[in-house]
Amino acid sequence: MNDFKYCTPTQYVFGRGVESQTGQLTRSMGSTRVLIVYGGGSVVRSGLLGRVKQSLDAEGIEYFDLGGINPNPTDDRVYEGIELCRANGIDGVLGVGGGSAIDTAKAIAGGALYDGDFWDFYAGKAIMTEALPIGVVLTIPAAGSEGSGNSVITKLDGLHKISLRTDTALRPRFAVMNPELTFTLPPYQTASGIADMMTHIYERYFTNTPDVEVTDRVAEGVLKAIINEAPKVMADPENYEARANIMWCGTLAHNGVCGTGRQEDWVSHFMEHELSAVYGVTHGAGLAVIVPAWLTFMVDHNPGKVAQFARRVWDVDIADDRLAAIEGINRLKDFYRSIGMPVTIKELGIENPDIDLLVKKLHENKGEVIGGYYRLTATETEQIYRLAL
Amino acid sequence: MNDFKYCTPTQYVFGRGVESQTGQLTRSMGSTRVLIVYGGGSVVRSGLLGRVKQSLDAEGIEYFDLGGINPNPTDDRVYEGIELCRANGIDGVLGVGGGSAIDTAKAIAGGALYDGDFWDFYAGKAIMTEALPIGVVLTIPAAGSEGSGNSVITKLDGLHKISLRTDTALRPRFAVMNPELTFTLPPYQTASGIADMMTHIYERYFTNTPDVEVTDRVAEGVLKAIINEAPKVMADPENYEARANIMWCGTLAHNGVCGTGRQEDWVSHFMEHELSAVYGVTHGAGLAVIVPAWLTFMVDHNPGKVAQFARRVWDVDIADDRLAAIEGINRLKDFYRSIGMPVTIKELGIENPDIDLLVKKLHENKGEVIGGYYRLTATETEQIYRLAL
Repeated sequence: MNDFKYCTPTQYVFGRGVESQTGQLTRSMGSTRVLIVYGGGSVVRSGLLGRVKQSLDAEGIEYFDLGGINPNPTDDRVYEGIELCRANGIDGVLGVGGGSAIDTAKAIAGGALYDGDFWDFYAGKAIMTEALPIGVVLTIPAAGSEGSGNSVITKLDGLHKISLRTDTALRPRFAVMNPELTFTLPPYQTASGIADMMTHIYERYFTNTPDVEVTDRVAEGVLKAIINEAPKVMADPENYEARANIMWCGTLAHNGVCGTGRQEDWVSHFMEHELSAVYGVTHGAGLAVIVPAWLTFMVDHNPGKVAQFARRVWDVDIADDRLAAIEGINRLKDFYRSIGMPVTIKELGIENPDIDLLVKKLHENKGEVIGGYYRLTATETEQIYRLAL
Repeated sequence: MNDFKYCTPTQYVFGRGVESQTGQLTRSMGSTRVLIVYGGGSVVRSGLLGRVKQSLDAEGIEYFDLGGINPNPTDDRVYEGIELCRANGIDGVLGVGGGSAIDTAKAIAGGALYDGDFWDFYAGKAIMTEALPIGVVLTIPAAGSEGSGNSVITKLDGLHKISLRTDTALRPRFAVMNPELTFTLPPYQTASGIADMMTHIYERYFTNTPDVEVTDRVAEGVLKAIINEAPKVMADPENYEARANIMWCGTLAHNGVCGTGRQEDWVSHFMEHELSAVYGVTHGAGLAVIVPAWLTFMVDHNPGKVAQFARRVWDVDIADDRLAAIEGINRLKDFYRSIGMPVTIKELGIENPDIDLLVKKLHENKGEVIGGYYRLTATETEQIYRLAL
């Protein structure tokens, strides 16, 4: 086990109707003038935004709007939000929606306190140590941003999609989590969220750090819970209990509890980020395609942990590591198909992907050699993209 | 799944030599004059206390000592600590040791800010909402107090051993966790710690709250990790990796991640607290005795979750719930015996326990009917004590 520091100060408030506590929670994080960052129509149409504002009104908290944040959120909206914060003396940022709204809210919260260009943090030119207080009202269980210190933003100039990770600066002060708010998520988005949260676990699970039994077991436990609950939410979108389990799984998948004391990987995310940036695919669906290809590559390069994954998570009963791994990957693909996820680039609707471009951008953004579980150069990442065709 | 609030703001600093960061961490919690609360000789003899003080010196932090805290810590030392805080303008409390030192530190930290008698909080006459900042240097993985908002203190007058639970007031600001500090723990204390942390999970796991798959799976995962690592620490007390896994298991067992969204039980703890208070047994060893008896009682009263425990944690492959439960309890007892734990009151060295007294004190302290998984009156708790004979 590696040495680690771990702190998750977020106050999670979970259950039916908890969005009515947003005002109170905002006040208790010390904010009196907040920027509300949200996505497209559903947050407005469902009346959620209205209820959140009502709750802020009740506490006498002023607010300003930054709506219409798109999936794979872009830097232009961050600059716009930072300007709004500065012009209006804003002292807190609320993200209402899924990962895109929340990640944009985070980038704004960090950028507002920084004299330079906020992109410096994402480009690795500066280290973010402070941000305006951030609150979250979650509507999509997927990105895990409600409990993480991370934020992913795409720079429009060059379509660089970059993930920033902070220890605590970007961890929300509170996260309001009402599973009922996810009842209306379309099946494809529900399933994409499931693939996304599962991958947050894989990126931590697949490691060469030895003797991490406790985090292995926790990771396997959350994965088994997802696999158990996913069919229920797909079959019955208004199953509160299954929605609640999936929502909390999404948080545990990414708040770090599955990752303490181990080297992490994140290559599947990096490879998917290029797919998203170039072809605009849904992040989780892209991951459902990349991960099986990445795992398949590992069968012949580092099968050990893939075999453990197959045995402990998918109950594969095969002694040989390579064969166990292959069977585990097959069961994973069957599972993704069963919830309506694609498992090939072609099934993503991309007939002739420009793999040279994807590989070039990947290594431009992330370096010549990437990955923790297995070190990959452009030769290997090209192979993995091809395995996903 | 029940609605819940959950917040674990503790900064965990985990790894070799991390006690040298105590001074820095104390400063970052805003304290400049601290009370150091610690136990008996080993913290002093090992040089740990000296290294902690050196680290405080390096940051210019003043300190006062409250040493010699005994297992099953008592209210007299808490009053003494509160006096020391008030007399010396102390603005932070450090617990150095295991649960007894840490729980005493917590009681002092809460009591120092309260005008009345600190026991009001434990007696349920007042609700603790604030405390002096608390830091921890952990040497015994067992109580989980390094990450919990709880504190257990025994009132000498009447030997009432009472657990106080706060949402966040008593959660440590930081916990320094170096597995090397546990190398010298005697086998009996190591095993008692293991039985204690396992019981922190059971108390949450055994619930009638339906649809808590994710917390079930996380709880089962941590239990499986403990079962896997325990024989290693017993066989080789200086196995860093196994010690590290056990140490982190102890934290996860009790920081709440295994308990979100569900009714909890805690009867095994209540019943053991009476054993500890009256006979001075080691808490974990007492739990190793009480839990199998409590589970055995459930075989004929509410076997469902015990059967799930048997199947998922102990790999019992029996279809009938009652029979599966019985086999799981047998495997649990075998496990406890294998690490040198007693599984009967007699094996605790108590030949003729005064069960009437235990039952009387139990219900005096905790009410006429207790328990979440199964409601127990004096008739049933007497049966359970007798099952433990």
